[in-house]
Amino acid sequence: MKRRKDSETPRQPSQIAILRYLRIHGPAARIDIGSATGLSPATVTSLTADLMTQGLVQESQSANANGTGNGNINGGANGSHGTTRGRPKVLLDLVPNAACVIGVKITINLIEIALGNFKGEIECSSEHSINTRDLDEAELVSTLITLIDDFIAKHKDFSARPPVGISIAVQGVCDSNSGEIIWSPALHLRNIALTKPLTERFGGIVQMSNDANCIATAISQNTNLHRGGDFAVIMLGYGIGMGLVLNGSVYNGDFGTAAEFGHTKYQPDGPLCNCGRRGCLEAYIGDYAILRDARGIIDLPDTNSLHPSEEQMMDLVARARAGDEDLADLFRHAGKVLGYGIANLIALLGPKQIFITGSGARAYDMMEPELMRGLSLAQVPELRRGPEIIHLAWDKDLALQGAIGQSLLRHDENMFQAANTL
Amino acid sequence: MKRRKDSETPRQPSQIAILRYLRIHGPAARIDIGSATGLSPATVTSLTADLMTQGLVQESQSANANGTGNGNINGGANGSHGTTRGRPKVLLDLVPNAACVIGVKITINLIEIALGNFKGEIECSSEHSINTRDLDEAELVSTLITLIDDFIAKHKDFSARPPVGISIAVQGVCDSNSGEIIWSPALHLRNIALTKPLTERFGGIVQMSNDANCIATAISQNTNLHRGGDFAVIMLGYGIGMGLVLNGSVYNGDFGTAAEFGHTKYQPDGPLCNCGRRGCLEAYIGDYAILRDARGIIDLPDTNSLHPSEEQMMDLVARARAGDEDLADLFRHAGKVLGYGIANLIALLGPKQIFITGSGARAYDMMEPELMRGLSLAQVPELRRGPEIIHLAWDKDLALQGAIGQSLLRHDENMFQAANTL
Repeated sequence: MKRRKDSETPRQPSQIAILRYLRIHGPAARIDIGSATGLSPATVTSLTADLMTQGLVQESQSANANGTGNGNINGGANGSHGTTRGRPKVLLDLVPNAACVIGVKITINLIEIALGNFKGEIECSSEHSINTRDLDEAELVSTLITLIDDFIAKHKDFSARPPVGISIAVQGVCDSNSGEIIWSPALHLRNIALTKPLTERFGGIVQMSNDANCIATAISQNTNLHRGGDFAVIMLGYGIGMGLVLNGSVYNGDFGTAAEFGHTKYQPDGPLCNCGRRGCLEAYIGDYAILRDARGIIDLPDTNSLHPSEEQMMDLVARARAGDEDLADLFRHAGKVLGYGIANLIALLGPKQIFITGSGARAYDMMEPELMRGLSLAQVPELRRGPEIIHLAWDKDLALQGAIGQSLLRHDENMFQAANTL
Repeated sequence: MKRRKDSETPRQPSQIAILRYLRIHGPAARIDIGSATGLSPATVTSLTADLMTQGLVQESQSANANGTGNGNINGGANGSHGTTRGRPKVLLDLVPNAACVIGVKITINLIEIALGNFKGEIECSSEHSINTRDLDEAELVSTLITLIDDFIAKHKDFSARPPVGISIAVQGVCDSNSGEIIWSPALHLRNIALTKPLTERFGGIVQMSNDANCIATAISQNTNLHRGGDFAVIMLGYGIGMGLVLNGSVYNGDFGTAAEFGHTKYQPDGPLCNCGRRGCLEAYIGDYAILRDARGIIDLPDTNSLHPSEEQMMDLVARARAGDEDLADLFRHAGKVLGYGIANLIALLGPKQIFITGSGARAYDMMEPELMRGLSLAQVPELRRGPEIIHLAWDKDLALQGAIGQSLLRHDENMFQAANTL
């Protein structure tokens, strides 16, 4: 295997592009890999041979079911077999256990851990109910270490080698550069350094990201959802998060904190937000904001009002649907505020797609008409016509999937960077 | 000269990177070009030899004044001469008349035209007072054609070859993809297609951009101002514009309309904006907004209130400075609104630098304290601490310089793309 150091022969980026393509699209013929990545047939053949030697890629089922997938290594690569009737295309696929990574998700009183294989699939996962808000920094770190240790021990049959990376999705504002949680509704403390102690304990690449950024990664790797171009995903729930994908990558900003859409403002001097400022979108749209206002108009059982449960929120939705117009107005108003927020996003960036998801989208049908009206009130038609607004049914595994996806992206880069310095 | 088509030998991007480096940094030794672009000494030597053969690059003065700059072609390229005392570094520079481009700037009642050389310097320019708001689409196009024709005829001594590109900076909201002016205070019509008829008449690459995006290009090419990382430039004037540079390029968005910061909102149902909606930042901070409110509190001469002149605005500033507290409050309030707008920008993107410039920055000293207070009210310290806010003295040539810079960037790409298809 030739390894060149000169930067004008970027063999590594091309190999990373092939891995990325296979992870997103699944098994593919060499000819299709070539047309998607812009690499010549000869180059695809050479690079995939390298990747097979390294145990990262393997031949898989043929595209038409009667092919064996063997004995035809250069199938698509010479550019002729791919379209020839009767001769099966040999498909290449990632080797699932070439590497594994750990995804961790921290939300209010719940820590989830998952094992992702090299294809980016979740192999197994576990959920742990823990009173996260009672933990101080050292307790949070030791809790995570214990949970991850136990999880790895339990699942070491999957891979003889330890995980190559740990990726943590956090509900709240994170600094992805420094690996600190700036603030999170799951914790009572601010500015908690997480990636450093976990790196010291586990080695490998430990990274951290806002949960919405992880969901953006998951969407960017799903060709059924993402149709090219830039997009934003808005996560409705306890708070309001956003992941932003610009030019193919999740945008973290220079300080690792983008994109805090929930803390852009609807109105100066508006209601108090959890962040400590006033008038943030979240202070109108977040679960805690809806519950706060609901308590002002109806008698509700005296449960945890700071951190409403899914049951509490579903109860409010049910009452609104059953005809409580005052309650329904809260959801409608949240929709209007969201419309104004989206109008600002469209003015500033004009993304091609805007996904709306999260557990808070449980009331999207009640929010949508006012959302569209707010958008119309706030934005001229010329700027509004392009971006598509898409309600995406909430899938609670999306953040973990994205965390695993981010970890593998970093692992790919790291693997070839390391190879290049040999 | 070898030309390779395979995408893993990107000779063209490397040559473009060299041209770009020389345009930004001025004359440079091969060794410095190499360390800035990450290309090996041998590659720099080979690529710059190509560029010299093509007449795009030439040897220039030596770095220490006693060098002749000749007879030492491989000076820096073998990596040893650069630091050797007494042996002059041979510097390479762009050939000024290797190509020329035309920059056009359209603002209210003023059209400016400039000729830019291959180094990106303005060789000459002309200003034309024209009642732009009286023109319909055909008249605007024919006016531009006449002005550009006359200008080229007058300056054809600079280059025997016609300009390779025309780049138009427009005050207002533009669609850079389609080359349409969506709306502009300089025009009474909306949705005017400009680049198509000019391309038909002049050939070459005709492009159009919002003036703030042009200024962002100019700043990105000025190493005294831009210190790496992402940045935003906010243009205060008749309206409020923004240019956004993300990952090294001006961000136009998927629909070519980014970044309309001036039409993000301070308050729903706020004052009426020129765009037709309410509560936009521009409806508080723009010259027209300040004058509108000033008319409500003091008697002003009955001049053009829709499009205040610089003299009118300077008169208001002078009265505020002389002790008219009500007038001073208008500027202070504009500062506060701007602070809230910047807080939203920081939440969403968190750029490294935020430049504030434009003719409206004439009152920046009166706006600044409230701007900082607004920012504090709107944004938590953790997100506020990173981005640097910089008042940049207004230079009215910046938009034209940026338009010329954009045209040359496109010309570089086009030149090597064309070469690659030979």
